[in-house]
Amino acid sequence: MASNAPIGAFDSGMGGLTVVKELMQQLPGEQIIYYGDTARVPYGDKSKETVAGYARQITGFLVSKGVKAIIVACNTVSALALDDLKSEFDLPIIGVVKPGAKAAAEATRTNRIGVIATRATIGSGIYEDFLHRTNPRIRVFAKACPLFVPLVEEGWIDDEITDLIIHRYLDEITAEGIDSLVLGCTHYPLLKARIQQAVGDGITLVNPAFESSREFKYVLEENGLLNDPSQGATADLSPTFYVSDGAERFRSFAARILGSPLPEENVKLHTFE
Amino acid sequence: MASNAPIGAFDSGMGGLTVVKELMQQLPGEQIIYYGDTARVPYGDKSKETVAGYARQITGFLVSKGVKAIIVACNTVSALALDDLKSEFDLPIIGVVKPGAKAAAEATRTNRIGVIATRATIGSGIYEDFLHRTNPRIRVFAKACPLFVPLVEEGWIDDEITDLIIHRYLDEITAEGIDSLVLGCTHYPLLKARIQQAVGDGITLVNPAFESSREFKYVLEENGLLNDPSQGATADLSPTFYVSDGAERFRSFAARILGSPLPEENVKLHTFE
Repeated sequence: MASNAPIGAFDSGMGGLTVVKELMQQLPGEQIIYYGDTARVPYGDKSKETVAGYARQITGFLVSKGVKAIIVACNTVSALALDDLKSEFDLPIIGVVKPGAKAAAEATRTNRIGVIATRATIGSGIYEDFLHRTNPRIRVFAKACPLFVPLVEEGWIDDEITDLIIHRYLDEITAEGIDSLVLGCTHYPLLKARIQQAVGDGITLVNPAFESSREFKYVLEENGLLNDPSQGATADLSPTFYVSDGAERFRSFAARILGSPLPEENVKLHTFE
Repeated sequence: MASNAPIGAFDSGMGGLTVVKELMQQLPGEQIIYYGDTARVPYGDKSKETVAGYARQITGFLVSKGVKAIIVACNTVSALALDDLKSEFDLPIIGVVKPGAKAAAEATRTNRIGVIATRATIGSGIYEDFLHRTNPRIRVFAKACPLFVPLVEEGWIDDEITDLIIHRYLDEITAEGIDSLVLGCTHYPLLKARIQQAVGDGITLVNPAFESSREFKYVLEENGLLNDPSQGATADLSPTFYVSDGAERFRSFAARILGSPLPEENVKLHTFE
């Protein structure tokens, strides 16, 4: 596989754009092909079988587009389907959960860590597993926060109602004396400022989107796949997005997260049915 | 088609159970086969093409199960795809929008009607269309309330946060002097008591689930399809549910809405992929 091939990233919908933003900053020489499954979003309340089936379709699609490596920019897919994907596809694939857990294990002083995510990710117990494997003395306080995704998608970010919902979900785990908190869903970093305010400065927020982009760079280097645009002609590096529904809505949400508008031709519709 | 064949009902997920509840009360002699597309829920933010494609698959499935008539127990599908379904399938099919609009037009004294629903239903303008066709002097004040569905699914029903969100969405339309309000999404009747409290007793809440079940009975009668269990052997009348994901979660939600537990064998998994 040529090192100037694109990298692939995918998510259940728009949340994975927080990972794309990190990738663009940390891997400025890479071209990104992103798939957002906006027709079947959200994945967070769905079963392992359903999520794994969708993830397999999307991975196959990205492979058909010639990507050299894939980052699963979705905690739910990383929690439920990463091992399946790795055994079925023959290219480097990383998720967001393991790098996030590793960073939390490094950040904690008290070994009391909070994890917030979708119902499916929390139900999988995967953050606990990774954290305990790193350090068996760590205690994990997990909480599913299913309203955070629709709140973000509604755009109610700097909002007193959102603050009340943050407190409703988080007060019980901050009362446990945690000193770090994993934002275990790619939408949640968009609420980071309000969550920080609600939990106080004594708690370190861990953003798996940031950690996993660093890890992805390392994996590309290890495999001799890091692109070096200075070494000759590389095509246009602007990212290409495929979505299964609502290209216009995706474009306007992406502009908000990435901080600049996307050309219309960079957001395309692709469905599996 | 035999009048003792079952009737079909479907929704994007669990909200259509409010229609099933009405059907069981108003049509006690009918056996119901219900499909809830829990793997692809919610439909309310999706495009017409996507929703119509899903609705076509589900209608085909219900027809293959031998239903004699179908009620589309979902406002979004009724708004975006009912005409397509009626022209493609050769059996009586009714939606929830038209009966709901008709009841609202009858209820209003001031000709000022509020409509709340998903983004897709509001965006379609279908309630306005039906209301204006009934009475051109009616003024419609429409508002999409995308957080109501996840709030209901989270079970936050008698809840001060839900009350704040109800006020956030509804205050601008109650300020317009409406005297009736259509609950244009099958989840919303579950918030009926709180919505009534928020808008005050002067506003009549119209529940399309109730109105459309009445209409469905009339359509069955018209077509000579109403079942009369007293006329000989009819099989077990307990409803059968098919879902595309999460049968267990559906079962416990259904028990809450229908008021009694469902046997495990009455909730089956069926997917289209």
